[in-house]
Amino acid sequence: MPRVVDHAARRSEIVLALWGVIHERGLDGVSFRAVAEAAGVSIGRIQHYFASKEELIREGCTQMVVAAQSRYAELSRSGGPEHQLWTLVSGPVPSTRPQRLGAAVWYAYLAKSVAEPALREIIGAAIEDAGARAIRLLTTVRSGADGEGTDAVGARHGAEARSRSEHEALALLALGDGLAQRVVVGAIDGPEALAALAEEFTRRGLTPGGILD
Amino acid sequence: MPRVVDHAARRSEIVLALWGVIHERGLDGVSFRAVAEAAGVSIGRIQHYFASKEELIREGCTQMVVAAQSRYAELSRSGGPEHQLWTLVSGPVPSTRPQRLGAAVWYAYLAKSVAEPALREIIGAAIEDAGARAIRLLTTVRSGADGEGTDAVGARHGAEARSRSEHEALALLALGDGLAQRVVVGAIDGPEALAALAEEFTRRGLTPGGILD
Repeated sequence: MPRVVDHAARRSEIVLALWGVIHERGLDGVSFRAVAEAAGVSIGRIQHYFASKEELIREGCTQMVVAAQSRYAELSRSGGPEHQLWTLVSGPVPSTRPQRLGAAVWYAYLAKSVAEPALREIIGAAIEDAGARAIRLLTTVRSGADGEGTDAVGARHGAEARSRSEHEALALLALGDGLAQRVVVGAIDGPEALAALAEEFTRRGLTPGGILD
Repeated sequence: MPRVVDHAARRSEIVLALWGVIHERGLDGVSFRAVAEAAGVSIGRIQHYFASKEELIREGCTQMVVAAQSRYAELSRSGGPEHQLWTLVSGPVPSTRPQRLGAAVWYAYLAKSVAEPALREIIGAAIEDAGARAIRLLTTVRSGADGEGTDAVGARHGAEARSRSEHEALALLALGDGLAQRVVVGAIDGPEALAALAEEFTRRGLTPGGILD
């Protein structure tokens, strides 16, 4: 179905251009005209895919989440649950310039989400999704089983272990975000952030980087 | 010196109006005209105090840092080093609506700092300042002494204790920021964030909330 692929590619191009505009001028600097110029397409082309500026901005936020999830899926594929957990928690720490730019766009969305319930919902769902995944992984790791998706193990361990995993998942994910924030502003660099995260994993009896297959 | 007070008050008014504009329209929506309208003063008045839009924006960032430091100074005054540490680490977690709006403006600055070295410098210095303070406090707490500023105790304990304090300070401060981020987007509420932080303090043998005099 070449037409479908085409459409997806064109939408992606527009979203990429949108991110560039957000980085240059902020979310409030977004207009169909600005995005069209950045993408090198007509305004009509953008209107064909997005009914409003707001819809385009929301789609840009959703695609940031999708990009992060794809990156996680790819990086975590080759490892067990500890490796998956490490990949999830260290994911926000930018290690390349494009990733730092991406983080800047993400903070622009965070800033705007306070006033925009639609954005808050997208970001909130992504955070909840990562939280649920981290809880599953931690429950699995702590029970000594391997691989994600063996929820039965979690159930066996009971509500107490689950509650412990919930607290631990929140602490680890929040730490990853807080370290990422420091890398974005240049207070520490990527390797320093990962070292701090690795130390925290070790302190909790988890293997930093996890175990690759 | 009433004139001096006047000037400071007028600058504050302008900066408050600036924050409102940033919250409404983002950093890229800032103009002398928009801030003048929000402050209910003339553009000339703003130009009297700030040579350029960029200077005003930088001053707004500096004043965010100053406000956070004043809040810390006030809240931490009545306690020992553990209380001061708790106040410092939990400081970014917003617990009122104005604080959430303030956090949104802070994220707008974070987002922009990737492309603006002047902002990165202000934010980086604030992060470094908080880090140095946390290290001093932790070193004091761990050595069993009381009160900030007894750096001699830290020196006695040697470089190893200091390095441990450095890692611990980074982990605690980053956790506070990551939890604050979740509160801003509504993924958890203020009390949940503080509970997670309290648990982490307890796990590290620190008293959540610290000890008040």
